[in-house]
Amino acid sequence: MQITEHDIPALARGCAVLGTGGGGEVTTSSLIARQALSECGPVELVTLADLPVDGMLMPVGGIGAPSVSIEKLSSGTEIGSLRAVVEQHTGRPVVALMVSEIGGGNGVLPVAWAARAGLPLLDADGMGRAFPQVDMMSMNVAGLPPSLIVLADERDNVVTIQAADGHWAELIARSATDVFGGSAAMSDYVMPVSLADGAIVEGSVTNALRIGRAVLASDQPVAGLLDAVDGIRLIEGKVVDVQRRTAGGFVRGSVVVEGYGADQGRLVRIEIQNENLVLLEDGEVRASVPDLITLVDSQTADAVATETVRYGQRVAVIAMPCHPIWRTPRGLEVAGPRVFGYDFDFTPVEVLHGSHA
Amino acid sequence: MQITEHDIPALARGCAVLGTGGGGEVTTSSLIARQALSECGPVELVTLADLPVDGMLMPVGGIGAPSVSIEKLSSGTEIGSLRAVVEQHTGRPVVALMVSEIGGGNGVLPVAWAARAGLPLLDADGMGRAFPQVDMMSMNVAGLPPSLIVLADERDNVVTIQAADGHWAELIARSATDVFGGSAAMSDYVMPVSLADGAIVEGSVTNALRIGRAVLASDQPVAGLLDAVDGIRLIEGKVVDVQRRTAGGFVRGSVVVEGYGADQGRLVRIEIQNENLVLLEDGEVRASVPDLITLVDSQTADAVATETVRYGQRVAVIAMPCHPIWRTPRGLEVAGPRVFGYDFDFTPVEVLHGSHA
Repeated sequence: MQITEHDIPALARGCAVLGTGGGGEVTTSSLIARQALSECGPVELVTLADLPVDGMLMPVGGIGAPSVSIEKLSSGTEIGSLRAVVEQHTGRPVVALMVSEIGGGNGVLPVAWAARAGLPLLDADGMGRAFPQVDMMSMNVAGLPPSLIVLADERDNVVTIQAADGHWAELIARSATDVFGGSAAMSDYVMPVSLADGAIVEGSVTNALRIGRAVLASDQPVAGLLDAVDGIRLIEGKVVDVQRRTAGGFVRGSVVVEGYGADQGRLVRIEIQNENLVLLEDGEVRASVPDLITLVDSQTADAVATETVRYGQRVAVIAMPCHPIWRTPRGLEVAGPRVFGYDFDFTPVEVLHGSHA
Repeated sequence: MQITEHDIPALARGCAVLGTGGGGEVTTSSLIARQALSECGPVELVTLADLPVDGMLMPVGGIGAPSVSIEKLSSGTEIGSLRAVVEQHTGRPVVALMVSEIGGGNGVLPVAWAARAGLPLLDADGMGRAFPQVDMMSMNVAGLPPSLIVLADERDNVVTIQAADGHWAELIARSATDVFGGSAAMSDYVMPVSLADGAIVEGSVTNALRIGRAVLASDQPVAGLLDAVDGIRLIEGKVVDVQRRTAGGFVRGSVVVEGYGADQGRLVRIEIQNENLVLLEDGEVRASVPDLITLVDSQTADAVATETVRYGQRVAVIAMPCHPIWRTPRGLEVAGPRVFGYDFDFTPVEVLHGSHA
């Protein structure tokens, strides 16, 4: 299967939904991807079975505060810098790029990079959503070491990290990103194809495309979206407060939504660290990481990014079950609520809500 | 020539003087070096002519706030991590270590690392003193790029930096050091032996040994030191104020010395960024970077480090002309007073003081 320029609108729409507010907004990355595809031709979307087992798989994405990456654009040379370091370090050719996180612009940008690098793109990612930290990867859950992390910025600064563990990988990568000015291109958890089976979330790119196409084809976009993602509608209302600050390579804050219509009188708060982390109502947790919480425009079902959400927006807030790996004990150790500083255990969103609304 | 355990006291004393307060105190690094030499045998001290021209020369030292490195000790494995990355990146064997900065503990530690690595040590360094920033190197003055910078900490975290220029190299390396907890082992300006001629300060190790031996052999240590370094005695007095804070990977602050004896009634302030930068008296500059300013114990002539100087210490403050490369226009561009934020031009210390006092 090939990804062409014409697939980008559906891909971007699906990635935005899976981004749970993060992963970077998709407008800029869509423009970058369309231009790359129009200049370099379509990108082959492949599965693990299509790739030589001893070739290197190179997960790629952007790291940093999404609010920065809107203005601090890629120069287009980063992917070449990353690939050169990976091939030099591993002594093996890179046979495919992989999306590090399918959520937001980070799900779209690797298409541009694959086109420019003349490499196929694996139909998979390392999250099945977006997460704010570089150690929150399915490869980490599977026990693979972050053996090699490479960051590049648009000035040709390249930083290669061989970290003692995922915790140190995150600290060092975040600090380098901060020095670069708040965003960078990154490849992490580089691995031979032979190690990928069971350590990645397969089918992520086609899943994002499927979600995007369902919304585009539907007369009632929010209903179409809920149907496509097996989602739960948490509230429909107006954004009445946004707190947001950019620091230490993250966007942090909260969004308050006041219900209207059937939800009149309800008030919920969504807490943010790049992504939507937790939804609270009357002091109770209604949904939390690692499950997905996404704000979408109540008319178009366009997902709203944490860096663009604003006072007065009319939104539907939906929740979706995460990939099963995140609900394992090791998955929750890597990206459960306690990792983000919350003092409660994870409860699946479909349990919290009895059934699908 | 060989460096043995028995050379360390003289080497340490000489390095402390050349450290101008920085480069790390020498007590800890002396213990580390003596243990390494006693376990692994003496280190060959070689000149450029002894080395194959296509072998790699690996300058090494510690980076970070000296006050941190007193308590955050090396694990001994860093040199192996650094060497492995350098050899992998360059595809050539490392044929010798070189002292990055001869000043302070950074002049002594590479002896330990050479012993452990079984490599000779080049009789040279990249400063002829100590400087606080990684771009303040003779290799930078000579126009060599900081093509490869590798940092390692005691947990086996390794960060490799390919920076756009020396400015970015310093920013990225400093930030990684900060994440590591404030200090790290570093190799920078790695180069083939063929590029070293004219880009390094030759004879630095034997110079430090000579200074240390002269002081040890003298009945009047301060006079013996002044004689050995062709130095100028700026004041003798008591430390009456110390301001010191550790932030952003540096120690910054100032020291005030009140004269006694022949210097009764005089008051000078020395400003610090890891090293002693500038000496001021009555609002006038009496000595400044890149010339060397060192506080020594008024009885023993032991150099006093910026992180150990304390109220009540009796000290002689001496100044020494820097290596001629630092007085060139390019040298002053890299490490002159303006680089440190001072709004005055450099004047050689022997000009400021008419003649040697």
